[in-house]
Amino acid sequence: MARTKDHGGRGAGTPKRADAERNIAAIINAATECFARDPDASMTTIAKAAGLGRVTLYAHFPSREQLLRTVLAETIAESAGIIEAAAPDAGPPAEVFAQLIRSCWPLLSRFGSLHAAVQRALPADEVRRRHDQPLAHVERLVARGQAEGAFRTDLPVEWLVTTVYTLLHAAADEVAAGRLAAESVGEILEKTLLATLRPE
Amino acid sequence: MARTKDHGGRGAGTPKRADAERNIAAIINAATECFARDPDASMTTIAKAAGLGRVTLYAHFPSREQLLRTVLAETIAESAGIIEAAAPDAGPPAEVFAQLIRSCWPLLSRFGSLHAAVQRALPADEVRRRHDQPLAHVERLVARGQAEGAFRTDLPVEWLVTTVYTLLHAAADEVAAGRLAAESVGEILEKTLLATLRPE
Repeated sequence: MARTKDHGGRGAGTPKRADAERNIAAIINAATECFARDPDASMTTIAKAAGLGRVTLYAHFPSREQLLRTVLAETIAESAGIIEAAAPDAGPPAEVFAQLIRSCWPLLSRFGSLHAAVQRALPADEVRRRHDQPLAHVERLVARGQAEGAFRTDLPVEWLVTTVYTLLHAAADEVAAGRLAAESVGEILEKTLLATLRPE
Repeated sequence: MARTKDHGGRGAGTPKRADAERNIAAIINAATECFARDPDASMTTIAKAAGLGRVTLYAHFPSREQLLRTVLAETIAESAGIIEAAAPDAGPPAEVFAQLIRSCWPLLSRFGSLHAAVQRALPADEVRRRHDQPLAHVERLVARGQAEGAFRTDLPVEWLVTTVYTLLHAAADEVAAGRLAAESVGEILEKTLLATLRPE
């Protein structure tokens, strides 16, 4: 992450260092909000939203792509923590899964069109790889559900995880595009995904 | 479509006109194959594959984006014809739907990473809108299945169509990325999508 770039020889805690930390945090927050509203948000818009000049923005993030990578890493790390807490290694798999979806949805909804921005700027394979950590929790839960007979076993676990990943983000895109109402999407996702997991 | 750009004042059938038609067809064929193999295929690679110079390529398609739009329009038009033939307005909806998936899959498989190339170069909303024609057949079939009690009615038809659209392309991406075996994906898709449509 770009944030670690500044942890160099200078001692932490100097005023210059504190300024840089504050600016980076402001940029990441502003960028997250800007991309959530508009997948084509420009560096100029983001600098303005962060209350900083373009020169300061580019000093920390030399490219829009690099800034998007950092925003994505931050939002995925946040999601991974919430998903981990919502997917314990015990309890009826279908109920745990429903709880997991209810926990993810507010995050995806808050990140709005960020996923669309990321998809346009970064290769799909890289985007998927960056989701490996949160998806590992989903994979463990699906595998447990299969082992306990709660989920279908005639489809590969990797494909079921792809289904979850794909439909969660598709729903976020539909809401961002105004084709699905945000208040109904949690229930719609829960029903759709449980249907794909249920044994025949 | 760019192809219509040449239908200008000159009489059809002149040698110059026939040359242009032949070159455009060669470019579209070569581009379809190149994008199917490599979502980052360059204009230089495509010109070489078409057996033409870059100048001729750019004379017909001033940008890579414009060429991708034309290739997408051609492949969607081809798919729409096949989908329409596979989705008649009669017959048991679940069986017709399964037949529809079996008809789509070879196409998606042949177009390989074209969808990934399109997703990176064009806005997601535009890509989805360009699929309106083939998806209209899917929508009619899903609505009929709901009306006849064969498909679930507690999820909106638009969302069920999005599920079909999203998972078909996700499966194509998974095969292109080597994460799913091409020979198993038809059955996997059929099972997954029928599960999302089946009444609870």
